[in-house]
Amino acid sequence: METFFSFLQKRVDDCSSLLCVGLDPHPSDLPVPTAEAARDFCLRIIKTTASYAAAFKPNAAFFELYGPGGWVALKDVIAAVQAESDRLGSMIPVILDAKRGDIASTAEAYAGSAFEHLRAHAITLSPYLGRDSIDPFLAYKEKGVFLLCKTSNPGAADLQDLPVVVGTDSHPPVPLHVHIAHLAQAWNTGDNIGIVVGATQPEALTRVRLAAPDLWFLVPGVGTQGGDLETALRSGLRTDGKGMLINISRGISRAEDPARAAAEMRDAIINIQYTLKH
Amino acid sequence: METFFSFLQKRVDDCSSLLCVGLDPHPSDLPVPTAEAARDFCLRIIKTTASYAAAFKPNAAFFELYGPGGWVALKDVIAAVQAESDRLGSMIPVILDAKRGDIASTAEAYAGSAFEHLRAHAITLSPYLGRDSIDPFLAYKEKGVFLLCKTSNPGAADLQDLPVVVGTDSHPPVPLHVHIAHLAQAWNTGDNIGIVVGATQPEALTRVRLAAPDLWFLVPGVGTQGGDLETALRSGLRTDGKGMLINISRGISRAEDPARAAAEMRDAIINIQYTLKH
Repeated sequence: METFFSFLQKRVDDCSSLLCVGLDPHPSDLPVPTAEAARDFCLRIIKTTASYAAAFKPNAAFFELYGPGGWVALKDVIAAVQAESDRLGSMIPVILDAKRGDIASTAEAYAGSAFEHLRAHAITLSPYLGRDSIDPFLAYKEKGVFLLCKTSNPGAADLQDLPVVVGTDSHPPVPLHVHIAHLAQAWNTGDNIGIVVGATQPEALTRVRLAAPDLWFLVPGVGTQGGDLETALRSGLRTDGKGMLINISRGISRAEDPARAAAEMRDAIINIQYTLKH
Repeated sequence: METFFSFLQKRVDDCSSLLCVGLDPHPSDLPVPTAEAARDFCLRIIKTTASYAAAFKPNAAFFELYGPGGWVALKDVIAAVQAESDRLGSMIPVILDAKRGDIASTAEAYAGSAFEHLRAHAITLSPYLGRDSIDPFLAYKEKGVFLLCKTSNPGAADLQDLPVVVGTDSHPPVPLHVHIAHLAQAWNTGDNIGIVVGATQPEALTRVRLAAPDLWFLVPGVGTQGGDLETALRSGLRTDGKGMLINISRGISRAEDPARAAAEMRDAIINIQYTLKH
């Protein structure tokens, strides 16, 4: 059966890339802060970088900001990735970065919004409400979810690093993000769960990879936020040399030549993958 | 200075009510599942129950589901509460139930969406990304946030009940939701942070009230989800007999006479408050 991660795997092989291009139209990056400008900003990035992108990741916040027009723009952006996929003859998955999380029937509505209305292929979710808040998304067998595990911001430490006692007292406490990684690995019976693990703390990437040897990681934090690409890949790649989607947003969108920046990033990843393998 | 909770306190006193009316237009409750039907469903509830409502709580998911039209409807719904407030001469706060949570500049965009575009007075947030994900919302001094603490669904146990080790090892572990309550109480220096605590586990309400003696609780789970009103109030009211907003959604929207259901719920709360005081 086709699953989100079988689609992603195919795309990764088609384009030899682990690069996820983030579509974050910050108002300050736009000539005028409007939904149309946000859309045009993203369409330009999509057009110039699609050949090098294993996936695209639009962030809902930068569209929601404009109300109804923003949602028109977001749908257009996702449709534009689909059009590029058709042109290239290789499906480029769209991960909607929305970090949603709500209880059963409400989660169903969010899943309907992301997967049916917007036609995204995967979505980021907060795990705070537990397994039943994720199930309505998993019910879409060909779609995927990425659970927040260890994010790239300083405040991540407030909750995600807390030592939690799991099971019997004889086991030493583990950081909450490691427990999330264990849960995600255990819950991934349908090949449709990945996790978000920031590159800003490579030792966390190592710990999480140990806890979840099979999962795909969506990895923000390389570049602008200070994470080092080689250290991140060394810490988090799976034994098959894959399993990480390195997200770059501003490093591409603010580059003088976004196509070149994306190509260089793809090649830098390939080069490190090769070095690690040999 | 006026703060969200000073507005709420005034409204609670104006209408002698701790009732929060949930605006959850489930598609199955609508004659046809459209944005317009969702809006009309909510407008009817607002019109008939405003006199008894300390606050209204629309859930973003049931609007987002319809894309751009849904966001038009959500804005209309919030504006309708404002119009009822003007008519009654008493401001009824709108809590946008959106459970957002993202890092700095992205959180700013969500805050702009909720507070500037939609003109909600408060928003529910996931605490999973930590303090810096909440700051952009707190920057709006007259607006409020309710952090998810202990939700009313079964899956809440997966993370929120985990024993976490805080500070030195000499302190025994506390459930994660109790730690969130401590953090929220400590962070509430601007009178603009409340927490979400479900009524389905009254012992959690008691624990959380001990950890956060001053905070307002937004309390889902009474009625349809099985929480008992009197037990909840007994477990969670502040020493001043306030500090809880009891959210009712389907218990009002599916009642034959929503106005009467809201009035009865308000009176039941008053009656229990009185009994507990004497």
